[in-house]
Amino acid sequence: ALLPDLKRYFTVTSVQDDLDEVFHPEGAQFAVTLGGDGTILRTARLMGDHQLPVVGVNLGNLGFLAALQPEQLDAALPELAAGRHNLIDHLMFECEVVNEGGSAVSRLGLNEVAVLAGPPFSMLEAQLYVDGDLVATYNCDGLIISTPVGSTAHNLAAGGPILRKDLQAFVISPISPHTLTNRPVVDSADHVYEVVVPAPNDGTTLLVDGQVVAPLTPGDRVRVSRSRSVFQLVEVSGQSYYRTLRHKLGWGRRPRDPEDDDRC
Amino acid sequence: ALLPDLKRYFTVTSVQDDLDEVFHPEGAQFAVTLGGDGTILRTARLMGDHQLPVVGVNLGNLGFLAALQPEQLDAALPELAAGRHNLIDHLMFECEVVNEGGSAVSRLGLNEVAVLAGPPFSMLEAQLYVDGDLVATYNCDGLIISTPVGSTAHNLAAGGPILRKDLQAFVISPISPHTLTNRPVVDSADHVYEVVVPAPNDGTTLLVDGQVVAPLTPGDRVRVSRSRSVFQLVEVSGQSYYRTLRHKLGWGRRPRDPEDDDRC
Amino acid sequence: ALLPDLKRYFTVTSVQDDLDEVFHPEGAQFAVTLGGDGTILRTARLMGDHQLPVVGVNLGNLGFLAALQPEQLDAALPELAAGRHNLIDHLMFECEVVNEGGSAVSRLGLNEVAVLAGPPFSMLEAQLYVDGDLVATYNCDGLIISTPVGSTAHNLAAGGPILRKDLQAFVISPISPHTLTNRPVVDSADHVYEVVVPAPNDGTTLLVDGQVVAPLTPGDRVRVSRSRSVFQLVEVSGQSYYRTLRHKLGWGRRPRDPEDDDRC
Amino acid sequence: ALLPDLKRYFTVTSVQDDLDEVFHPEGAQFAVTLGGDGTILRTARLMGDHQLPVVGVNLGNLGFLAALQPEQLDAALPELAAGRHNLIDHLMFECEVVNEGGSAVSRLGLNEVAVLAGPPFSMLEAQLYVDGDLVATYNCDGLIISTPVGSTAHNLAAGGPILRKDLQAFVISPISPHTLTNRPVVDSADHVYEVVVPAPNDGTTLLVDGQVVAPLTPGDRVRVSRSRSVFQLVEVSGQSYYRTLRHKLGWGRRPRDPEDDDRC
Repeated sequence: ALLPDLKRYFTVTSVQDDLDEVFHPEGAQFAVTLGGDGTILRTARLMGDHQLPVVGVNLGNLGFLAALQPEQLDAALPELAAGRHNLIDHLMFECEVVNEGGSAVSRLGLNEVAVLAGPPFSMLEAQLYVDGDLVATYNCDGLIISTPVGSTAHNLAAGGPILRKDLQAFVISPISPHTLTNRPVVDSADHVYEVVVPAPNDGTTLLVDGQVVAPLTPGDRVRVSRSRSVFQLVEVSGQSYYRTLRHKLGWGRRPRDPEDDDRC
Repeated sequence: ALLPDLKRYFTVTSVQDDLDEVFHPEGAQFAVTLGGDGTILRTARLMGDHQLPVVGVNLGNLGFLAALQPEQLDAALPELAAGRHNLIDHLMFECEVVNEGGSAVSRLGLNEVAVLAGPPFSMLEAQLYVDGDLVATYNCDGLIISTPVGSTAHNLAAGGPILRKDLQAFVISPISPHTLTNRPVVDSADHVYEVVVPAPNDGTTLLVDGQVVAPLTPGDRVRVSRSRSVFQLVEVSGQSYYRTLRHKLGWGRRPRDPEDDDRC
Repeated sequence: ALLPDLKRYFTVTSVQDDLDEVFHPEGAQFAVTLGGDGTILRTARLMGDHQLPVVGVNLGNLGFLAALQPEQLDAALPELAAGRHNLIDHLMFECEVVNEGGSAVSRLGLNEVAVLAGPPFSMLEAQLYVDGDLVATYNCDGLIISTPVGSTAHNLAAGGPILRKDLQAFVISPISPHTLTNRPVVDSADHVYEVVVPAPNDGTTLLVDGQVVAPLTPGDRVRVSRSRSVFQLVEVSGQSYYRTLRHKLGWGRRPRDPEDDDRC
Repeated sequence: ALLPDLKRYFTVTSVQDDLDEVFHPEGAQFAVTLGGDGTILRTARLMGDHQLPVVGVNLGNLGFLAALQPEQLDAALPELAAGRHNLIDHLMFECEVVNEGGSAVSRLGLNEVAVLAGPPFSMLEAQLYVDGDLVATYNCDGLIISTPVGSTAHNLAAGGPILRKDLQAFVISPISPHTLTNRPVVDSADHVYEVVVPAPNDGTTLLVDGQVVAPLTPGDRVRVSRSRSVFQLVEVSGQSYYRTLRHKLGWGRRPRDPEDDDRC
């Protein structure tokens, strides 16, 4: 339905419905996604080493990433065609599982790495290493290493802070930490982070951007580091990171009665 | 504006605009409050030992206590006149400041007692005693002892849990506890709670239901115990505690895009 | 090793090493457990409808339940033999899975019921009903319904409050709630709580006291209610609930430098 | 008492007991502080635009900043004299109060800016602007803008995350936010942050590094930005940021009984 609009300003080089198929950038200048934040995530993974700047058109509720509403397209497309837009760089990461046999799997991600206890759900004991130094041992239901983009997803639910989208940092947040002083830590994206679970459950699992990657076995090291690939989101005028946050998180609402004179 | 409606079903014995004046119950069966939760709180304090059941008509945003909207009055008044309503008992407390000279001040409250660090804002060291036993020493910005009714006010903001309105319990929540393991504690309303601040700031202050009561001096013991008075709220059919919670706290909203396939 | 000591004051009717075997109360007056809190939990489940008061001797770190240290036995046993002790009642619950075919499984528990998302770890959408009324829909990694005894275990890690051991209440705490206003709720033990997961993952699982009970299927209702059985813990003089909390949670420690003059 | 040790390796140019006096750097290469983290903070403020690298010798409990124990000095001093040490740069900020009359006061800080509600303790409504854009309106007891160094102090108590010491970012954390979705936000140190309180209480106060700076009046804008001054901490081998965190926050401790087989 948006194709005619797009074609008035741009040459459409390819249309892809199935985000599991091979990606054909074919000299394109932008990728336009129709959907929500999940669609953008999948597109970023699909593009791998060949990241095109993404124009995220939102078809659902207001998204953190897909902040452009369909009704704003009329105004936004000519701006875009005229080059009056910003490209905001977003941190992407490589997640490898390394064990005695070398590197087993590798995934490109935009949101977060999660190691979850899994069946039979005994408490997870996860060691975190930064640049090879043991940082902490977490007794928890899971451990999340999140980018700024991912910080408003699983990390926020687990009690982590919001990281402004363009920050070059990761936040590490435990899920249900049994040591109550184990608080979220924010550290530079220039370090290498490793999670080791010496005695995993049968069902202890590694997820990247919410997708199951592999079960974890005792010798595995989950290594997370900055990717050379950078996810670029197109921002046209009128969009604002904090305005989106305000709307999505209801920061404008007051939970109390403004007419009331008491603090209750 | 509601008087004619009320008079169709009830005899109005007195109308009181100023909640700081003396209260005249004069054989009344109900007190009807027009306003918000703050108005109900002030009415409860005003009634002191002579608590009438309260019908809370809400003129602002949806209240936790004032859950009856004006447009529901037409349906609710005949129910009320016919006695088809429930009286929900709510815990009230006495808060006394006790020192060498005996009991200095005493307040009746419905929401919470708060001891706040105050200027020059050095960290407060507050000792909590339950039935005379030292329970914990909190290093914090303040300490809140809250009823179930108050649990959705200052306590919730400070990180405390929600207590169902009819529970006979208090919740003790520190504000910004510097010992991170100092978590909110819920305990029975049948105990006597005391807060002692051995070295208060100049501005360390006791508040009851959000109102300043007194500065705290080194020998003061802030004693909180269940009041013989019970605050009674009239509940007519169609009201539900949890439905109110859902609406006030947005528990029906989903912060994420339901159309989306990823967890983000 | 403690048997000779015990025999000086009591008749030992049976010694049980394997807590998975059938339990033989055989007219006993007390059950003495050697181990930690886990041993007490398993003993309570083992005793089922025939709860004997438990004397918990702690062989590991200080326990919340097993608060009697071996070296205190010499002093405690004569007190116990002379009847100078208190019995503290602790809430137990029945957890049933109810579906179209009736009640499928039933478990007696002392700590908590947990419904956990499980593989492939999509966000859990769990509905909570209290006495048949829908209270909230949680989008989360899991939902915990905990007793006071259980409140210092998984519930505390998930962000829930501490409930004094003898309170007759449950606390419902979501794990990683995606709706940030979904805060822990404390409500009376006299209600019936039901958790329904309309669209569970393959691996969505019900646990009672940390033990896997069953996978959850779409029609299942997890029903939690107060048990007629009451777990009784023997408290001898010198033990104190809050003193145990202080030691276990380090409430006496100050995280900052007492010599320092600044708030840092 | 440490002077003889120091003199074996260095020329001592001045000894200063009173940190409120004028500072005499007099061509010194290092400043050595004896005390705790508070002493280092005061020294950093004292040095103003002339920051010398600081060697923090800790005389109290283990400090976050003053990580060098006196007994380590023997080994550390020759390393230092030989230049085998690292200088870790730490973010400092300027905090100005700007109003119609221009800039009223200005402070150099290392830990945090706090705006606190103050007497009579009505809820604070604080607006946060980033580079001139309104980001959020907080209804709270106070608002903290913290550096990485400050992140383990008041910010951590208020629920904020830990920021690795060398990160170039601020974290903004509300104290007791009444809008529960108002979560801590981490953003780059390259922005300008402003806090405006349109209707302050009589006692609403600005603090920098825990010291009262000024009361806030309606037209005031509290402006926080990166300082050109950089606080430099000397790190000798054997010190590690995360090891200090582990010890200070007890991240090595397990709150539960390792002998126990249950999750409780």
